[in-house]
Amino acid sequence: MPEYDRIQCPAFKSKIMSADAAAALIPEGCNVGMSGFTGSGAPKEVPMALARRIEAQLAQGHHFKIGMWTGASTGPEIDGALAKVNGINMRLPYQSDPTSRERINQGDINYIDMHLSHVAQYVWFGFFGKLNVALIEVAGILPDGRLIPSTSVGNNKTWLDQADLVILEVNERQPLGLAGMHDVYYGTQLPPHRVPIPLVHPHDRIGEPYLRCDPAKVIAVVPTHKADRNSPFKPADADSEQIAGHLIDFFKSEVRHGRLPKSLLPLQSGVGNIANAVLAGLNNGPFENLTAFTEVMQDGMLAMLRSGKMVGASATGFSLSPEGEQDFVDNIDFYRDKIVLRPQEMSNHPELIRRLGVIAMNAMIEADIYGNVNSTHVMGSSIMNGIGGSGDFARNAYLSIFMAKSSARGGDISCIVPAVSHVDHTEHDVQILVTERGLADLRGLAPKQRARLIIDNCSAPEYRPMLQEYFERALHHSRGKHTPMLLDEALSWHARFERTGSMKVREAVAA
Amino acid sequence: MPEYDRIQCPAFKSKIMSADAAAALIPEGCNVGMSGFTGSGAPKEVPMALARRIEAQLAQGHHFKIGMWTGASTGPEIDGALAKVNGINMRLPYQSDPTSRERINQGDINYIDMHLSHVAQYVWFGFFGKLNVALIEVAGILPDGRLIPSTSVGNNKTWLDQADLVILEVNERQPLGLAGMHDVYYGTQLPPHRVPIPLVHPHDRIGEPYLRCDPAKVIAVVPTHKADRNSPFKPADADSEQIAGHLIDFFKSEVRHGRLPKSLLPLQSGVGNIANAVLAGLNNGPFENLTAFTEVMQDGMLAMLRSGKMVGASATGFSLSPEGEQDFVDNIDFYRDKIVLRPQEMSNHPELIRRLGVIAMNAMIEADIYGNVNSTHVMGSSIMNGIGGSGDFARNAYLSIFMAKSSARGGDISCIVPAVSHVDHTEHDVQILVTERGLADLRGLAPKQRARLIIDNCSAPEYRPMLQEYFERALHHSRGKHTPMLLDEALSWHARFERTGSMKVREAVAA
Ligand SMILES: CC(C)(COP(=O)(O)OP(=O)(O)OC[C@H]1O[C@@H](n2cnc3c(N)ncnc32)[C@H](O)[C@@H]1OP(=O)(O)O)[C@@H](O)C(=O)NCCC(=O)NCCS
Ligand SMILES: CC(C)(COP(=O)(O)OP(=O)(O)OC[C@H]1O[C@@H](n2cnc3c(N)ncnc32)[C@H](O)[C@@H]1OP(=O)(O)O)[C@@H](O)C(=O)NCCC(=O)NCCS
Repeated sequence: MPEYDRIQCPAFKSKIMSADAAAALIPEGCNVGMSGFTGSGAPKEVPMALARRIEAQLAQGHHFKIGMWTGASTGPEIDGALAKVNGINMRLPYQSDPTSRERINQGDINYIDMHLSHVAQYVWFGFFGKLNVALIEVAGILPDGRLIPSTSVGNNKTWLDQADLVILEVNERQPLGLAGMHDVYYGTQLPPHRVPIPLVHPHDRIGEPYLRCDPAKVIAVVPTHKADRNSPFKPADADSEQIAGHLIDFFKSEVRHGRLPKSLLPLQSGVGNIANAVLAGLNNGPFENLTAFTEVMQDGMLAMLRSGKMVGASATGFSLSPEGEQDFVDNIDFYRDKIVLRPQEMSNHPELIRRLGVIAMNAMIEADIYGNVNSTHVMGSSIMNGIGGSGDFARNAYLSIFMAKSSARGGDISCIVPAVSHVDHTEHDVQILVTERGLADLRGLAPKQRARLIIDNCSAPEYRPMLQEYFERALHHSRGKHTPMLLDEALSWHARFERTGSMKVREAVAA
Repeated sequence: MPEYDRIQCPAFKSKIMSADAAAALIPEGCNVGMSGFTGSGAPKEVPMALARRIEAQLAQGHHFKIGMWTGASTGPEIDGALAKVNGINMRLPYQSDPTSRERINQGDINYIDMHLSHVAQYVWFGFFGKLNVALIEVAGILPDGRLIPSTSVGNNKTWLDQADLVILEVNERQPLGLAGMHDVYYGTQLPPHRVPIPLVHPHDRIGEPYLRCDPAKVIAVVPTHKADRNSPFKPADADSEQIAGHLIDFFKSEVRHGRLPKSLLPLQSGVGNIANAVLAGLNNGPFENLTAFTEVMQDGMLAMLRSGKMVGASATGFSLSPEGEQDFVDNIDFYRDKIVLRPQEMSNHPELIRRLGVIAMNAMIEADIYGNVNSTHVMGSSIMNGIGGSGDFARNAYLSIFMAKSSARGGDISCIVPAVSHVDHTEHDVQILVTERGLADLRGLAPKQRARLIIDNCSAPEYRPMLQEYFERALHHSRGKHTPMLLDEALSWHARFERTGSMKVREAVAA
């Protein structure tokens, strides 16, 4: 039984059991800190076993819920399975599963949507109460009880340190070649005892390659053998390629003007279609010796490491397609010293992001004409995913860039609006907006100057005259001319969409 | 002529001239970086001379404007005088002068309202174009040409380094005992060359007591002898004392629960009535060995240093009453080693605020039921002052606290609203809200839980039923139940105020 080879410490071997047996040990109503960051390194078996247990109790009329804390999003077999049986009472800090999203938007789950860099410290500060159980996937257990982390680190260090009880999933599908890729920094302290974090390059190693774990807290060890949930890679569409094109042109211009070195600065990139296109554009672009200081490694970053365009990358997890994963596993010895996986309290740390001068590139739901950005809410009230690390990066970045297509839902939604329906990144934190229509460089501009530029450069042609007209009327009628605003109309586009299914003014046409 | 004693370097002595002569050297249309932080250490003569020059040209039909960059707010003789003659084209990063505010809200000044910690680095990055002239008040010039800083440091280091031309005001009214109180850190670099900032206690000294200045750039040295503009100290009103009381009770409870040490953590405090009351409360409270890591030293902090409650404080400037200033001057030898004045890029640095675990206490204009905070805009469109350092502190603090009276303008404005009319601090950055009615501890709460607590604990009694009713209807009618919102009504309270002069529903009564 190969999986037993991965559990080399006797104290842990004696705790081997099935996922169902382990799930039975999770106390009702407790808080569970799980591994997992965009699916990578999430536990594969115990959450589903727990969902079965909850479902069985539900069938007997008994409601059994947990507080679920993770690194970031997980996958259908975790967030999805537990949300389906309504087994989550409180969820933090990020999710992106359709079932979980639905539960939150129905009001069934209390979701705390927070900066990823804040999570570990708030738990240490005692702001969320007691963490009862840590449920962590690892790649193996060393003879001395230290853990080889899996494909993400996330908050695992904190969960292992803070929880009363620990359940480990040892996943033999994760390559053992991961050993040595991680860098777990144990120098964190509570204020007033904190000291500078000694990291000065994105791929510096400042910690240890393994996670520490008190064997006395371990109540179950569950061998598993399932791959990470990976989403298929979607080739970039035309809009995304245009967004990437605008951004690459902008970087070229910044290098020409001496505002960026030729190797740019460490890149942070969200995931998804636009991010893929940007990374592909960079891989074919004129920049050399690139680095990344980001949350997750996507296919595009592996490609850049392979091509030699990128010389090193730091992240807290992976988000790969199945082909990307295969490439990673096949070439893990090539990748091992080029990729550093850190706890997310380090990958997203304001101190490090600001010191390194990261170029932050994130997708958004919508922006308004003044440059406020909504990353989280659809029509003000429904959560999409969460703010994730976008705030950690945007606020502290050298350059803070937000990207979206200029319209959504077949053109019925304008992604540039008079006022965003929810603010996650304020006008003070947004420097560059890009849509397929163009790029607005907001640096050094006051609100009205920003408005004209955003409308002209970024909005969809079908909405541009409406935006211009709103802005001119606001300029005329608004009491304050600093950030002209028509209070009665600012959110009317969203209200119209809710009423008619479109932000377009069909009503006026009909009238 | 005593002022000449303060100018000990021959190279500078030869540049001594009148304020008018110096103002005549400022090129038209240029960007001027001025000293000054809430009035302390601002230049006293040249700005008014410049305003006279601009006015004279205006009388001849010629519009002469400058870009005006400072540390933070200045005073009537600077912002006020230059705004009055419409001599400011672009202003950053903060202002609070009535005339300047009026100009901005009339649309005459392009105002860039930004995080104070971002200013210096954005200038170094080249994001605002060229800085032409630095206009800096100092307390004296050493024989080797180094400058004894005045009562604030602000962005002076950056202005002196970045400007092509330098004009110095040497103010003999500033006590020479200031020498040695400042700590100017010259270890900053541009990415990718940045290193950790070696500060681990609020009052650590990591730099030099003097400012460096290239004598070749100095075009004028103007002796002055005017006191800083100081506002009289207003004794706390009853509401402010109640806010302070709630906060002190909260701190006591945090200490009891082991979430704060008995000496608390370094305090950051805004200025004004509420801040004064909080500091007075702390000075009479049970906490010992307090420290401050803040922007400005107010009377209340001096009192705490005197009483021994506070053992050390870091700031970038002062904001004292005339009596406070007298006390400071009289006891400067006592204060000198207890107060460190730093550049604002250090006083407000995310790295340091987060490392030290600062307790951030700032006033706000309004908060909404979900905990979003507006610090800058009245009714969405008119600027009040600016975000200042509140975002630097709130985002990176150990505890992020916002305070206001529950209503304003004689009760016609509720400071707790369905949706704020402008967002400066998002729900992700606000932990504690306090009004005279009570305190809402938002840590670990999801949006709907926050809403109930904020309405119950913080809102004014006359608005509470309206808020409850809005929230219940939103809960019912809003499509998403994560952050229930009625898009047609969210900003209707503000619109009603604009229409009727009150957020109260007089209209319904009349109907
Ligand atoms: C903002 C975010 C949701 C965009 O996601 P994406 O996958 O890049 O963007 P897409 O264009 O595919 O849009 C996703 C969905 O939002 C919808 N959408 C886009 N713009 C919209 C708008 N203005 N209003 C309403 N819905 C909108 C799309 O129609 C799509 O819906 P569907 O899934 O039902 O088809 C995503 O980037 C996110 O969650 N960001 C926050 C966290 C973050 O920034 N993390 C980065 C790492 S630090
Ligand atoms: C928010 C801020 C304006 C509050 O100022 P303050 O002096 O403490 O508060 P006050 O209660 O005296 O209110 C100031 C004015 O705002 C008005 N006001 C208060 N609440 C209001 C509201 N909800 N809507 C409109 N006006 C409001 C008051 O009536 C008063 O107006 P007036 O001067 O015409 O009488 C001020 O703290 C600020 O500018 N903050 C941003 C910068 C910052 O936080 N710096 C801290 C250091 S980092």
